[in-house]
Amino acid sequence: MKQASNRSAIAPFLAMEMAREADRIISAGRNIVRFDVGQPYFGAPARALDAVRDSFNANALGYTEGLGLYALRARLSRFYAEKHGVDVLPERIVITTGASGAFLLAFLALFDAGDRVALAAPGYPPYRQILSALGIKPAIVSAEAHEQYQLAPHHLDELSERSPLAGALIASPANPTGAMLSKTGLAALAAACRNHGAALVSDEIYHGLTYDGRASSALEVDDGAIVINSFSKYWAMTGWRVGWTVAPQHLITPLERLAQNLTVAPPTPAQIAALAALECEEECEARRTIYARNRDILLKALPKIGLSPIAPPDGAFYMLLDISQHGGDSRAFCARALEEAGVALTTGLDFDDARGAGWVRLAFARETGEIEEGVARLTRWLG
Amino acid sequence: MKQASNRSAIAPFLAMEMAREADRIISAGRNIVRFDVGQPYFGAPARALDAVRDSFNANALGYTEGLGLYALRARLSRFYAEKHGVDVLPERIVITTGASGAFLLAFLALFDAGDRVALAAPGYPPYRQILSALGIKPAIVSAEAHEQYQLAPHHLDELSERSPLAGALIASPANPTGAMLSKTGLAALAAACRNHGAALVSDEIYHGLTYDGRASSALEVDDGAIVINSFSKYWAMTGWRVGWTVAPQHLITPLERLAQNLTVAPPTPAQIAALAALECEEECEARRTIYARNRDILLKALPKIGLSPIAPPDGAFYMLLDISQHGGDSRAFCARALEEAGVALTTGLDFDDARGAGWVRLAFARETGEIEEGVARLTRWLG
Repeated sequence: MKQASNRSAIAPFLAMEMAREADRIISAGRNIVRFDVGQPYFGAPARALDAVRDSFNANALGYTEGLGLYALRARLSRFYAEKHGVDVLPERIVITTGASGAFLLAFLALFDAGDRVALAAPGYPPYRQILSALGIKPAIVSAEAHEQYQLAPHHLDELSERSPLAGALIASPANPTGAMLSKTGLAALAAACRNHGAALVSDEIYHGLTYDGRASSALEVDDGAIVINSFSKYWAMTGWRVGWTVAPQHLITPLERLAQNLTVAPPTPAQIAALAALECEEECEARRTIYARNRDILLKALPKIGLSPIAPPDGAFYMLLDISQHGGDSRAFCARALEEAGVALTTGLDFDDARGAGWVRLAFARETGEIEEGVARLTRWLG
Repeated sequence: MKQASNRSAIAPFLAMEMAREADRIISAGRNIVRFDVGQPYFGAPARALDAVRDSFNANALGYTEGLGLYALRARLSRFYAEKHGVDVLPERIVITTGASGAFLLAFLALFDAGDRVALAAPGYPPYRQILSALGIKPAIVSAEAHEQYQLAPHHLDELSERSPLAGALIASPANPTGAMLSKTGLAALAAACRNHGAALVSDEIYHGLTYDGRASSALEVDDGAIVINSFSKYWAMTGWRVGWTVAPQHLITPLERLAQNLTVAPPTPAQIAALAALECEEECEARRTIYARNRDILLKALPKIGLSPIAPPDGAFYMLLDISQHGGDSRAFCARALEEAGVALTTGLDFDDARGAGWVRLAFARETGEIEEGVARLTRWLG
């Protein structure tokens, strides 16, 4: 029988194993505070659901065009004008099956097998796994505390000394730290990319969820940047699987051909929901206010029990906590937190296999009552 | 600015260009019979929509597991027992983002860059494009009329003489011919694959839509086959993007890791709809009855005007018509059919770039009245 390919030999997400253990304990009747789940506790905005319900009577929900519903592309064009003051034609916006689908299409459109792409650790594990599965070489930089664990221009200079870089992948706000790049920092990275002939790919999936000033889009500093975004986080539509990418005009035909062949089209109900979700700012902002309150509670309480974030959690709904005062073995720490405190966390090892043993990720996109209960449990346990 | 990758230089679907031209003419007020559209005119079964509506009140519709909802995997396990008399554990069934998503994951799990995979022309164009984008070499066989344009064991023997084959990809019923492999034919192909150490990948997306006896699953003849299927055709849920793959147990962990990293999970509303759709056989069979009537009308009328199918349209909702009596230039024929007869068809060139100029594809998953009108127009035009 045909064996599995070499490229499918991917390391497991430790977070998934831990989540299963948490589920098992919960099924057995124990109450667990879930600080491990990387998605909002909330669902799609109410009017997004209404729009899908209405579509059931009006629409067979067949395939859309491979690039997505034009109305949604046009609405996102307006989004960039209003939120970022940049002029992006609808034709440059491609609707995708979540940010995941956007990465797949953008990486294939930009990079050939053997190309090198720079990215920072700690970072979202699928970045390097998607690149590797497509034959692209992740050039992973061990990012530094004084640079908020983000990629910096000097990393690109250093990596380019050995062999050419085809691209650089950044995320701001970042998962797992929540740390943000300033507009100046973004501009410097964009300049370094242009200097090295590398594509700048900017993951902006946590845009909208910021607590200390707004996030700049890479498009504000470089019209040629490739931007990835999604309705999963700010609009809380994880399970719907709808996102988008903005790309320079010369990549749109390649993206369209790839989309038609690899996906046919993104999910139609999700696109209808997304179009309506863009008009639900009040509901989304109310949730952001909840996350902001949660973050304040955590930032006040956690350092007192020896759990300080390694970088400022400017955005997203995560913080990456230093556990060096508690033994520095994050797998053991998470297992004990679950067992002894009834709190589920995620090991940093998924995000940085060299240094992640000293870190745990805490996700706080839940009701404030749960956050308070989790803090109380951790404080009783460690305090 | 970073140029597009070599692998994204994909030939366009001529069908898409023709569909745009048809759309343009329709927008200008002309009535066109759509024989070009490769999806059911109908939408998801009514109870599938009810299930999604109900979920809005009960469920935040977050991510499911990467392998999909366990309830849906278990229900599909029962489907294989009932429809095909084969025993497939739920753990061997992976829910995907349409059949497209299943191809992506299965090809990555099975094949490394440089591997060769056999497939037949005429065939669904994305097969070779997905393989190529992933660095896998499509070994395309010019399939023969006396074998109903399907891959046959001797093709695998011939291809293996040059260099090893890693896999063979078959489709039954096939797009664009509708031709089906017999159970004996399937068994012979499975044996040839085992003989050459090649994986057998069987696209069964048109199962359920058959008119001359049922379709056998590759799983009936080889428990190690990799089967791809979808809710898009029989269940008419194209836009929802939900399908599945059945694989041998040793591929499940690779598939799970790929799914988690490349997709996170398939769309949740689509999975909820799919679970309910599996209980909607009456509604789906009523539609099949419509397609069967359409097919009868076409098979009676078209040969009289010099348009005979090149292979028996046993299933799916297509026939591939020989236009040699009408000049043999299918692009010109389609353009004239649209302009002069008000009928949209698809050129065979998308499916077979060598011989497709002599063929046009006709799709008939629509109301019978439209089919009758299309036949009348073609008869007036060519008769």
